[in-house]
Amino acid sequence: MDKTIFELAQVYQLLEPGPVLLLATAGRRRPNVMALSWQTMVEFEPPLVACVLGRSDYSFEALQRDGECTLNVPGAELVDTVVACGNHSGRDLDKFAAFGLTPRPAAMVAAPLIDECDASLECRVVERDLVERHGLFIVEVVRAWRRAGQPQRTLHHCGHGTFRIASETLQLPSAMR
Amino acid sequence: MDKTIFELAQVYQLLEPGPVLLLATAGRRRPNVMALSWQTMVEFEPPLVACVLGRSDYSFEALQRDGECTLNVPGAELVDTVVACGNHSGRDLDKFAAFGLTPRPAAMVAAPLIDECDASLECRVVERDLVERHGLFIVEVVRAWRRAGQPQRTLHHCGHGTFRIASETLQLPSAMR
Repeated sequence: MDKTIFELAQVYQLLEPGPVLLLATAGRRRPNVMALSWQTMVEFEPPLVACVLGRSDYSFEALQRDGECTLNVPGAELVDTVVACGNHSGRDLDKFAAFGLTPRPAAMVAAPLIDECDASLECRVVERDLVERHGLFIVEVVRAWRRAGQPQRTLHHCGHGTFRIASETLQLPSAMR
Repeated sequence: MDKTIFELAQVYQLLEPGPVLLLATAGRRRPNVMALSWQTMVEFEPPLVACVLGRSDYSFEALQRDGECTLNVPGAELVDTVVACGNHSGRDLDKFAAFGLTPRPAAMVAAPLIDECDASLECRVVERDLVERHGLFIVEVVRAWRRAGQPQRTLHHCGHGTFRIASETLQLPSAMR
């Protein structure tokens, strides 16, 4: 794997822009992966992330049971894979094998890192109070991996298979973190 | 105002891609506005949105007290205004006046719509259980306004005044909502 560890304090710079993610779980039989657009940062450091899953998602019960996942940031070139992951359930299919994704062992959690993604975050569930009512898990990022200089082109889902690519960069003077 | 009402069922298509928002509150003395990147959809319909605010944000106490806000989606041409809103506090400044934003009366809430933004959502707080621990409010969108054909270029904050613009659009066949 050609990714290296980066500072947990910088995780928000990856997730705050709202890219679609691939959420991977270890699972009982085999690892699984789902497309996730419903996520937000909750705290800078330690980085906390709210993830909203549907109760009918196969990953919902895996995340409930395992309490661990990885959040992986796909570059725009993986758009077909993202759509494929979003359109199939892990109940019926080994999505890693079917869609050519490579699971790599993580350092701190049982869920796999997805090698093809530009960045991968190892996460543990730390807050379940809104899981029953809203499907909202808060996870803590415990280790962060990134390919040097990536991601530069992220995917943002606008519904029904329409994506926008965020690529053009602006840099303004700002005191905002 | 040249915006028209659109279907609540389509709200997620605006927020799911993760654009930076301008959150406006009515306030006791005057309306206020803050830049917000920490938001995610929680439910399609009625549309529920989780918004994470810092306890030190002036808007935090306004949202706690009023229980209402608007979420406004700025186009990329408003980037200077977004940064200005993010770098000043409503405690010391009338940000609407200082940054040339036009408040318009909303239909269902006391907080104003921001005329210059491409879309504006009227919201009421419906879940406060994670406010104390995580600054996380869940709001329900009760009315949605959009300028025809907008937004086409949204801003995505990557930390420290760096933004990416999402504009290039891909359309893939997909069964995903």
